[in-house]
Amino acid sequence: MTNQCGTSRIAGCQFTLYPMSDNFVDIILSALDEVDSSKVWKDTDDVSTCIRGKMVHIFDVTEAIFLHAAKTGEHVAMSGTFSIGCPGDSSGDVYMDETDEPQNQANIQSIEQEAGCKFALYPMGREDYMEQIMNQIDLSKSRGVKVSASHYATRLDGDVKDIFRTLHESFDQVQQEVSHVTMTFTVSANSPSNR
Amino acid sequence: MTNQCGTSRIAGCQFTLYPMSDNFVDIILSALDEVDSSKVWKDTDDVSTCIRGKMVHIFDVTEAIFLHAAKTGEHVAMSGTFSIGCPGDSSGDVYMDETDEPQNQANIQSIEQEAGCKFALYPMGREDYMEQIMNQIDLSKSRGVKVSASHYATRLDGDVKDIFRTLHESFDQVQQEVSHVTMTFTVSANSPSNR
Ligand SMILES: [Ca+2]
Repeated sequence: MTNQCGTSRIAGCQFTLYPMSDNFVDIILSALDEVDSSKVWKDTDDVSTCIRGKMVHIFDVTEAIFLHAAKTGEHVAMSGTFSIGCPGDSSGDVYMDETDEPQNQANIQSIEQEAGCKFALYPMGREDYMEQIMNQIDLSKSRGVKVSASHYATRLDGDVKDIFRTLHESFDQVQQEVSHVTMTFTVSANSPSNR
Repeated sequence: MTNQCGTSRIAGCQFTLYPMSDNFVDIILSALDEVDSSKVWKDTDDVSTCIRGKMVHIFDVTEAIFLHAAKTGEHVAMSGTFSIGCPGDSSGDVYMDETDEPQNQANIQSIEQEAGCKFALYPMGREDYMEQIMNQIDLSKSRGVKVSASHYATRLDGDVKDIFRTLHESFDQVQQEVSHVTMTFTVSANSPSNR
C-alpha cells in the first residue's frame, strides 16, 4: 500500500490463467511457450503473473496466452486486472521503447474460440467516475460480441478475439480521459455448462 | 454500464472458484454443498458467482467455499471482486434483514490451510483515494499473515482464515470512510510451485 501515482503511460495486467484440468501445469507452460512476450516486462509467482509495457502489447499477450490455452479444448479461464497510470514505479519502463507492432496477432488469427467474459471499469480519483464510464464506452458498436448487464460487471459473449478487442477499446477510451484506470475481467471458455 | 449508485450498504462479491483438476465440477459442487449460503442472495452462471447481503456473510461464505474446496488437497484458487455502496439495484436487499451471525465459521474452524493472496482496494469517486487506502489500512496489525508489496496489489501469506480476516478488516475500514469501495482478490492454495 505504498504505491504512488506516476506520470508514465505504462500499462500493466496482473492475471492468472486457470486450466480446470489435471494437466494444468503443461497447459500453462505450453501456452506461455507459444506466446511471444518479448515486448513486455514479466514477473510470475505462484499466485499470478504481472506484465507491463505498452497497452497494445499488454492486450496482445494476455489474449494470446488465453487463446493458446483454450485451444486445448479444456475448460480454461483467466481472471485479472488491467491497470494504467498508477502506480508509478519504474519496473518495465524500458519496454516503453518497443515498437507498436503486436507480436502474436498473426499466430492467433486462425484460432476460433467462443468464450464468456465479465469485466468492470474503475476510473480512479474522479468524483464523476460513473459519467466517465457511461460517456466513454459505447458498447453498441462492439461488433461480434453480445453485450449484457451483470451484477457489478458487463458481460460479453462471442469470439475471444472480439472480446479482447472490446476490452482493449473500452479501456483505451476511458484512459484517454482519466489518468488512472483499472479494469477487472474474467474470461471463460469450454465450460461444461455450455456443452 | 447502466448502474447507478444507491444508498444501501448491501455488500457483494463476484467471484469464481478454480480447481485445477479434472474433478473440478465435483470439487465445486461439494464445496457449495458444504457451505450454508442461506443468508446471502446468490446467482451463478458459467463465468462467475455473485453473492449479495450483509458484509459479514459475504466474507463468511466466500471464505468457506474456498476452504472446503482447498481441503481436497487439489490446487485451488479463487478470484473475485468485493463491492459495497454501488450499484444500488435492489436484488438481494431482503437479505439485509438477516442476523449478523455468520453461518459457516464453526464448520471451517478445524480446517488448517495455508495460501497466498493478492488484493487491491479501490475507493471510488474520491480524488484522495490513495490517502484513503494509506490511512485506513494498517496491515502491520494483521496477526498471522505475512504482508508484502506486489505490482498493483498487496500480497498476504498465511492461514486462509487469517487471510480472509485481513481482507474483511481492510475492506471494512475503507468502506467506513468511502461510500463506494471495491476490492479485487486472488487467493491460491496447494500450488505445486510451493511443494
Ligand atoms: Ca483426475
